[in-house]
Order: sequence, then C-alpha cells, then structure tokens
Amino acid sequence: MAQVRNKQVILKEYVSGFPDESYMSLNTTILPLKLPEGSSGVLLKNLYLSCDPYMINRMRKLNTPSYVESFEPGTPINGYGVAKILDSRSPNFKEGDLVWGRTGWEEYSIIKATESLFKIHDTDVPLSYYTGLLGMPGMTAYVGFHELCSPKQGEHVFISAASGAVGQLVGQFAKLLGCHVVGSAGSKEKVDLLKNKFGFDEAFNYKEEPDLDAALKRYLPEGIDIYFENVGGKMLDAVLLNMRVHGRIAVCGMISQYNLEKPEGVHNLMHLISKRVRMQGFIVSDHYHLYTKFLELILPHIKQGNIVYVEDVVEGLESAPAALVGLYSGRNVGKQVVVVSRE
Amino acid sequence: MAQVRNKQVILKEYVSGFPDESYMSLNTTILPLKLPEGSSGVLLKNLYLSCDPYMINRMRKLNTPSYVESFEPGTPINGYGVAKILDSRSPNFKEGDLVWGRTGWEEYSIIKATESLFKIHDTDVPLSYYTGLLGMPGMTAYVGFHELCSPKQGEHVFISAASGAVGQLVGQFAKLLGCHVVGSAGSKEKVDLLKNKFGFDEAFNYKEEPDLDAALKRYLPEGIDIYFENVGGKMLDAVLLNMRVHGRIAVCGMISQYNLEKPEGVHNLMHLISKRVRMQGFIVSDHYHLYTKFLELILPHIKQGNIVYVEDVVEGLESAPAALVGLYSGRNVGKQVVVVSRE
Ligand SMILES: NC(=O)c1ccc[n+]([C@@H]2O[C@H](COP(=O)([O-])OP(=O)(O)OC[C@H]3O[C@@H](n4cnc5c(N)ncnc54)[C@H](OP(=O)(O)O)[C@@H]3O)[C@@H](O)[C@H]2O)c1
Ligand SMILES: NC(=O)c1ccc[n+]([C@@H]2O[C@H](COP(=O)([O-])OP(=O)(O)OC[C@H]3O[C@@H](n4cnc5c(N)ncnc54)[C@H](OP(=O)(O)O)[C@@H]3O)[C@@H](O)[C@H]2O)c1
Repeated sequence: MAQVRNKQVILKEYVSGFPDESYMSLNTTILPLKLPEGSSGVLLKNLYLSCDPYMINRMRKLNTPSYVESFEPGTPINGYGVAKILDSRSPNFKEGDLVWGRTGWEEYSIIKATESLFKIHDTDVPLSYYTGLLGMPGMTAYVGFHELCSPKQGEHVFISAASGAVGQLVGQFAKLLGCHVVGSAGSKEKVDLLKNKFGFDEAFNYKEEPDLDAALKRYLPEGIDIYFENVGGKMLDAVLLNMRVHGRIAVCGMISQYNLEKPEGVHNLMHLISKRVRMQGFIVSDHYHLYTKFLELILPHIKQGNIVYVEDVVEGLESAPAALVGLYSGRNVGKQVVVVSRE
Repeated sequence: MAQVRNKQVILKEYVSGFPDESYMSLNTTILPLKLPEGSSGVLLKNLYLSCDPYMINRMRKLNTPSYVESFEPGTPINGYGVAKILDSRSPNFKEGDLVWGRTGWEEYSIIKATESLFKIHDTDVPLSYYTGLLGMPGMTAYVGFHELCSPKQGEHVFISAASGAVGQLVGQFAKLLGCHVVGSAGSKEKVDLLKNKFGFDEAFNYKEEPDLDAALKRYLPEGIDIYFENVGGKMLDAVLLNMRVHGRIAVCGMISQYNLEKPEGVHNLMHLISKRVRMQGFIVSDHYHLYTKFLELILPHIKQGNIVYVEDVVEGLESAPAALVGLYSGRNVGKQVVVVSRE
C-alpha cells in the first residue's frame, strides 16, 4: 500500500503566559494512503488550515471544563481547515469530495468525527474562503450580527478587531443593511482597509488612542446601537459608556484577555441598566444548522462583488506556528490562512 | 380656602460619597387644599412613601444624561408613593381616588405628570403594598424574571439582595414555577426569612462568605441558569464563574456600586462566551403597559396565600431620611415603607 511522509505541527508543552512559536514543533510520521482495515471515518489530504484566536485556550491546560478541551502535548494541533477526501468509510463522503471542518495540523488526517465536516459544493470561489468568509468565521459574523443583534437600517454599529476574519464581514453586513459602521484595528494599514476596501464609514487605530472613550465619542457622537465585541477589556469598558438605549452587544470574543494572567476588570456594567442593553455571548458551532441559510445569503453577494474578503496567506506547515501566535500581536492582516497544499 | 401645613423632606445639597441623613432636612410650607385656579394635574394627600435604591442617583449631581434627573437641592425629594386624590383637573382621576406612582416626599403634593399615576382598584390588600409588592418593585420582579429570563421549571435560580422589595418576590415567583431557588442577603435574620417565610431552597449571608465563588458552588453545585442581579461587583464576578450553558442574567440593579467613587472591576465576563450567557439590563418603567397582566397574575396568589410580603414600615416623614439611607447599609428588612398618614 502506498505510504507517504506526513508532516505535523505538534504542541510540545502547554503554553503558559504569552504564546510563542517555541511551544510548537514539526514532526514527520509515515502514513498509509488508505484507511486501515476496520477504521471508520475519512482520510483527508489537508489543503488550507485556519489560524483562529480561540486555539490558544486549547494550548493551555484547562482546569475547569469548557466548550473546548485542551490539546494533548506531543500530538498534532487541530482546528478548522479545508481538505480533500482520499478515502472514506462514511456514507456522507466519497473520494475526491472537498470538505471544510475540523482537521489536524498535518498534511494528512484521519478524522473519525465526520459530523464536524461540511461538504463544499460551490467551488467557483477561492477554496481558502472556507477557512474564513465561507467557514467558521463567516458563520460567526452572520450569527453574531444577524441572528443575535436584530440590526436595523440606520443603526450605529461598532466593531473591534474589525479588519480580522470575523470583523471585516460584520462591517460589510452592516453596510449592506444601511447601518452607520465604525471599526477599530491595530495599524494604519488595517484602518485604511476598513475605510477603503470594506466601506466602513469610519475607522481608527485603537493603539493611537490613549482615551478610548473620547475616540468613540469622536467617531460615534450619537452613540452605539450595536457593538460586535471581539477584544474585551478596556475597549468594552469604553463602549459601555457609549451605548445607546436598547443597545445590543454580541459577545463574540475577548482576544485582548486571552493571554493575561488575570483578566482586566470592566467597570462600567451599570450602563447596561440605564441604557437597557442586552449582552449576548455565543459560540458559533451552536448555530451550524443555519449554514445553508448563510450560504444562500452570502454567495450571491460574493459573486456580485458586494462582499469582499482579505486573507493573509502563509505557505507551508512550517509557517503555521508563527502565523498562529501572530494573531495575538495583530500580525495578520485579514483572515490568517496556512496553505498546506494547493490541490 | 382651607389651608394646611405641608411638611416636606428637602434635599439640602448634592450627596458626595456615602449618603447619610444630613443631606436631607425637614421643612414646612403652607398649602391651600384646592388646586390653584388655572392649574392642571391633581392635588394628592400622600399616605405611604417608598424608599428605593435608585434614589441615590437622583441625590447626586449627574454629569451625563441618564434615565433619571438629579433632584434639585432646596426642593422636596420625590419618588414612588401611595396617595389619595383631594382635587383633580384630570379626566382620569376624581376626588377620593386612591393612586400609586410618582409623588413628593411631603404631606400634600400637586402632581402635573398624572400619566405616572396608576389608579388603585383593589383595596382588600394592605394599601402600602402599592409601594412594593403591587407597585414598582413588584413589577420589577415580574418583568425581570418572567419577561426577560424565560424561566423554566427545574431551573437553578440565584437572587442577590434576595430579602428586599424586589428579591423576595422574584424568589417566590421562581418557587411557584418549580425552580430551585437560592438567595443571598446580609444578615442571619434575612437568611431565615428567605428560607422559612419565602420558601427559598437555600440562602446564605454573603457577609460571612470570604469566598463568594465557593459559597455559590456549595449552594448551587449544578450552577446557575438564572441570576437576578441586584448588587453587582464581587457577587456578579463570582456568579459569572458559576453560570450554566445558556444562562440568563436579569441586570436589575447594582446597589453595592452606587456609593463607590469608581465602580469595581468585573473580571469574569469571558464566561459569557463559553457559557453563551445573555445579560439583559432593564428599567421597569419601560414595561408598565404590562401592569394589568401582572395584577391578574399576582392578586389571586396573594389572596390564596401563595405569595407573602415583608415590609419594613417606619412612621412619619421625620423617619424618611434615615429609612432611605438605611437601604445602602441593609438596615431594612423587606420593603422599606414610610407612613405619612394612614388615611
Ligand atoms: N464566539 C465564537 O464562536 C467565535 C468564533 C470565531 C471567532 N471568535 C472570536 O472573534 C474574535 C475575532 O476573531 P477572528 O478570527 O476575526 O480573528 P482576527 O481578527 O482575524 O485576528 C485576531 C486580531 O485580534 C486583534 N488583537 C490581538 N490582540 C489584541 C489585543 N490585545 N487588543 C485588541 N486587539 C487585539 C489583532 O488585530 P489588531 O491589529 O486590530 O489589534 C488580530 O489581528 C476573537 O476574539 C475570536 O476569539 C469567536
Ligand atoms: N431596573 C429597575 O427598573 C429597578 C427597579 C427597582 C429596583 N431596582 C434595583 O433592584 C435592587 C433591589 O432593590 P429593592 O427595592 O429590592 O431594594 P431592597 O433590596 O429592599 O433594599 C436594598 C438592599 O440591598 C442590600 N445592599 C445594600 N448595600 C449592599 C452592598 N454593598 N452589597 C450587597 N447588598 C447590599 C441590602 O440588603 P442586604 O442586607 O441583603 O445586604 C439592602 O437591604 C437594587 O439594586 C435596585 O436599584 C431596579
């Protein structure tokens, strides 16, 4: 039986403190290109891997039960990716099918949990989009904005980490609906993208704003109806001071807190009462039954050029560890993708 | 025309720091017992006045616009109360009607904003209940619990400031629905009330719990589906660690924060995401259109003895300042009422 060398990204040990590449290493095993006798699931050739902020949680030793489990040191990292089926024992997939979903950080993976794989039907968009715009982050933007925030035309929308995988789509959804949209991001280049490529009405570099409350009052003088929360901490505290009556906050992520020993304190929650604000935390995978509805909405927009998407693509599994930890310093410009193989 | 002496509680100056009685004083004016020629509104004889935690906000100089305005130093405080109509220029009220709603902290008040008065129809309950159980705090419990939390039988409910005007009713609503109900309060006497009078499953004195997280884990080992938030600060932080998946938090009040220079920091908001928690702030007056529905639900329960209510009643306007500031040290046991006149 044909065998291949299978390069893998291994978690060497649990991360403590701020992550860097040294917590990961490359390893090579040998793999037969067929599922072993008696095995269930599918054998995948991985094409694109997705770097997602939540992954740092899995790289730590979690003491309390969570919606994700810690990775196991010494084994390959896993996450979202796009792959091709090489061999299948599942009635839902056949050789040659393209899929996106949970896979390993390696060239080839055997996946037993095939229920977390989605078949890709539409291939006249870049395949890598299924790690971002058409995959988990896209669904996150859709669910958090459209399903949880009940947005209305003319409302004032603020998005943090706005140029990222999720944020850039939230902003474009909000513009399509006729909202006034402002975003924050961590560099001039990202701010320019927001204004010139994604059509945000305003954008600012939060790193150059010593007073976030003042910045929000400058860019959103009428206040905020909808806050799409990606960062937490000081930004959330400033946003709370600027919420409008009956405002909504989709609590998607708090990346500024993921690598702190102790999360920062948020002081302005009393504004939830006086402004009657709803804050709703969510996990996108609870909402995957909406994926078809999401595709029906978004594919025409992509094909008509109403929605664009920026990816930050690095080549090869060797580049994956740096790409992943780069998320936490904002190195990525747009959706961070790793190419494992282009076909 | 008959004239009367009208005793009043005046705000002497804006409160700074922790409030005490010295910020208020008694004053007497002379008032004709008829509405002046050309005046609109109603002339009220005040019977019961309500001491409510939000009032401290109005005793301070508010710099930012809020849902309430600051009181004016040198004029009578105002708030909720029960009163009898002595004279009316409003088509909705006639002499002799009993009402509850916004009135002055004085013996007689001229009220122009009659839209904030509700006519009292049911008088075979204690009239003072219209400051609490059948008034604003009762509606607050109803709206926060039934309308915002979508409670279900068997869910685990936690209530802070649980023996107070709002909390004691929330707990009884939750028990009637078949929830598992736990409350916190600030003395042994209050804890006993919760368990023995209001039928809570468990209750604890938060002042004797150095580790609130541990206390919650002890009394709610399966976690919290619904938190009725009355106090904020450290209690909220501990609750966030104990929320169950798809939990709901009705953000009613944060009394532990009202008298701090700077509100405490809340660190555990990331749990909103992993537990998919909804936090909803509200102001009861947005929901007064539900008052009739509320009465239809609660009056039969009161008459059948399924819902009981504890009031802390002090006599005379002279006692009002101490009763009001007593809320912030937990001096009141149950709903704090001031009797101005019994008929
Ligand atoms: N709830 C869910 O189911 C779900 C699903 C997907 C994603 N998420 C969350 O959504 C958020 C965005 O994810 P994404 O995939 O779109 O990532 P991303 O925005 O493409 O990448 C992360 C970005 O976060 C920003 N960042 C990093 N550290 C920061 C800090 N200390 N303060 C402020 N910003 C910081 C950086 O941009 P700047 O240069 O602008 O700082 C960085 O580029 C994350 O919080 C993630 O955990 C949640
Ligand atoms: N959103 C709305 O529309 C609305 C309407 C009405 C009331 N509320 C809010 O609901 C909450 C309860 O109001 P209520 O009328 O029922 O008052 P209450 O409970 O009858 O009286 C206030 C109680 O708060 C507790 N307390 C005072 N300082 C505290 C502190 N530092 N930490 C913890 N607890 C403290 C005391 O009880 P202990 O002895 O147990 O400490 C005190 O008896 C308040 O936060 C109020 O502002 C909101």
